[in-house]
Amino acid sequence: MDVGSMVRAQDARPARRVRVAVDAMGGDHAPGEVVAGSVDWARDHPEVDVCLVGDEPRVRACLDGPLPDNVSLVQAADSVGMEEQPAAAVRRKRDASINVCMRLIRSGDADAVVTAGHTGAGVASAILNLGRSPGVDRPALAVQMVTDRGPFVLLDIGATTDSSGLNLAQYARMGAIFAERVLGVARPSVALLSIGEEGGKGEQRVQDATVMLADSGLHFVGNVEGKDLPRHPADVVVCDASVGNVTIKFFEGLSSLIFEMLRSEFRRWPLGPPGYLLMRPGLARIRARFDYERVGGAPLLGVKGTVLITHGRAKRRMLGYAVEVGAAAARAGIPDLIAKALAPAAALPADKTVDMADPATVAAP
Amino acid sequence: MDVGSMVRAQDARPARRVRVAVDAMGGDHAPGEVVAGSVDWARDHPEVDVCLVGDEPRVRACLDGPLPDNVSLVQAADSVGMEEQPAAAVRRKRDASINVCMRLIRSGDADAVVTAGHTGAGVASAILNLGRSPGVDRPALAVQMVTDRGPFVLLDIGATTDSSGLNLAQYARMGAIFAERVLGVARPSVALLSIGEEGGKGEQRVQDATVMLADSGLHFVGNVEGKDLPRHPADVVVCDASVGNVTIKFFEGLSSLIFEMLRSEFRRWPLGPPGYLLMRPGLARIRARFDYERVGGAPLLGVKGTVLITHGRAKRRMLGYAVEVGAAAARAGIPDLIAKALAPAAALPADKTVDMADPATVAAP
Repeated sequence: MDVGSMVRAQDARPARRVRVAVDAMGGDHAPGEVVAGSVDWARDHPEVDVCLVGDEPRVRACLDGPLPDNVSLVQAADSVGMEEQPAAAVRRKRDASINVCMRLIRSGDADAVVTAGHTGAGVASAILNLGRSPGVDRPALAVQMVTDRGPFVLLDIGATTDSSGLNLAQYARMGAIFAERVLGVARPSVALLSIGEEGGKGEQRVQDATVMLADSGLHFVGNVEGKDLPRHPADVVVCDASVGNVTIKFFEGLSSLIFEMLRSEFRRWPLGPPGYLLMRPGLARIRARFDYERVGGAPLLGVKGTVLITHGRAKRRMLGYAVEVGAAAARAGIPDLIAKALAPAAALPADKTVDMADPATVAAP
Repeated sequence: MDVGSMVRAQDARPARRVRVAVDAMGGDHAPGEVVAGSVDWARDHPEVDVCLVGDEPRVRACLDGPLPDNVSLVQAADSVGMEEQPAAAVRRKRDASINVCMRLIRSGDADAVVTAGHTGAGVASAILNLGRSPGVDRPALAVQMVTDRGPFVLLDIGATTDSSGLNLAQYARMGAIFAERVLGVARPSVALLSIGEEGGKGEQRVQDATVMLADSGLHFVGNVEGKDLPRHPADVVVCDASVGNVTIKFFEGLSSLIFEMLRSEFRRWPLGPPGYLLMRPGLARIRARFDYERVGGAPLLGVKGTVLITHGRAKRRMLGYAVEVGAAAARAGIPDLIAKALAPAAALPADKTVDMADPATVAAP
């Protein structure tokens, strides 16, 4: 996976300082690693402003020196825990760090939010505070997967589950805009991830989306299978979060397992250590390809603002990448493009929208 | 992945010759590779009878010598193509090889069926000709995944999609019997594959199944995530086929990619070839762990007979493993055990059963 292509995205907005709000209280290693990763990154990137949002005394306690000029603190007295029911917690805790972050976007004081906190809370807070883009029924988390034939976009990897065919068709539209804008693909190919290549196979929602996409004006290339994912099956691959999330996490688990196995084989075999020395550059290149930390995080497409959700287990290195991707995503101006592209198709029936009062519809990895 | 543990399963039935019917016309490389793989395997295993079911002249044309004594041919004039709508084709083509195979089980002339043909056709033909086990709403395809901590069972990997919570709960029961009987685990742990470990997260069907399993008498350990799969998250891991199929095929695609990358790095780097020689034994061990051909195939649990569905792209080596797993599965007597365990819970509402007239409910990878 690769973060570089995001940074290469053309600048849509006038050249001015980009401001990234970081949810300092979100994540398994918050605030310590989140603060450290953000500050380290900000020191190396004086052209971007970083705002740490959290309980100020606790955030200050994590600092190992004076704040760089481009880092500021914003007080948020409360936070949403990983074990809380996200939609309810976000509604109840008005001053939770994630809500304060989103309000910084709404008030124009930040261009992007980065959070390693509960995905469901991030999604719920974005919907509540920023609102969905016109014509978007449900937002979706998109991740870039890198292959030998270039990167592609996989979505939804965890914003909501139990999506409909209509939801999948909207994900396809949003993913295509992302691929155009961020990957620089002129007319991105779009595929549905399914259990067979034939259109008549697979889940009902996939079959429904197949019909809608055939008629959508998108460059829809049909269904692809799990085995195709490592070979760049299309520029945009669309699925329900139940499939996308298991896939991306399985990738994470399997990648680390394979490298552990290589390491242990190098050790147990008498000729392993010299073999390892000889092979080190090649192995490093392969490892870099499977380095999920460099992804940084997944942009939440379909809300009125740039929101990047990173790994709950992110430590300082991954947090730095997340802030970088957040800044690049803000420059790319995806939310406006999505609003422009999807708005005419809007006016969805009310029963199809995400019900914030119903925890089942806002699930999260 | 590993096929050995299946062969080690205790014998449930009186020691007599096991008879495996092979669908000679099913699969991307049928009949050539299917016939060759079955005959090769039968030559090495005179204790098992193999019956090749297909169009006799075409099957005979694939033979490279006289039939071994333990191989017989059964005529089937017709076959189901990979591109046909499976449930309809199975109903229409009474003499399709897959139907003739199933009837050999029903008449007591075979103990197991092995097919590399269309999964949906195999599932539909098994339901039509053998029937579902009492108390089983939908059958499920189960596969063994091997980890450092031993094998576990993953199901459903492709029998049907759009399963309900009740379906998942039944898969859990069938998987537990399989784990007990084939993996030899006394009280197998059972988990649901979801997008988070917390019970309140994930798809509606997963939440429904969570409630049912908590109260089921099974050793239910909750939800596991994709990242846990390579580490033996539980003895039985349950999901809808949309998730299981993408996962297993992604595994297949990723495994071959990683070994291709290793090979190409060994080649491009000047010190690679000597490094490779030094590392060869270790790499071979890792490769064996990710050798999906050795899995042989996936038993279809929940029908009244032993049916093993192998990879559509299976060539002779994998076909041999499939026949071996089919024979072992027949000896293990899983269908009877499932019938005994699930029958009391039977009497499902009619609208919950798989409608053979509705193609959408019999989907396939």
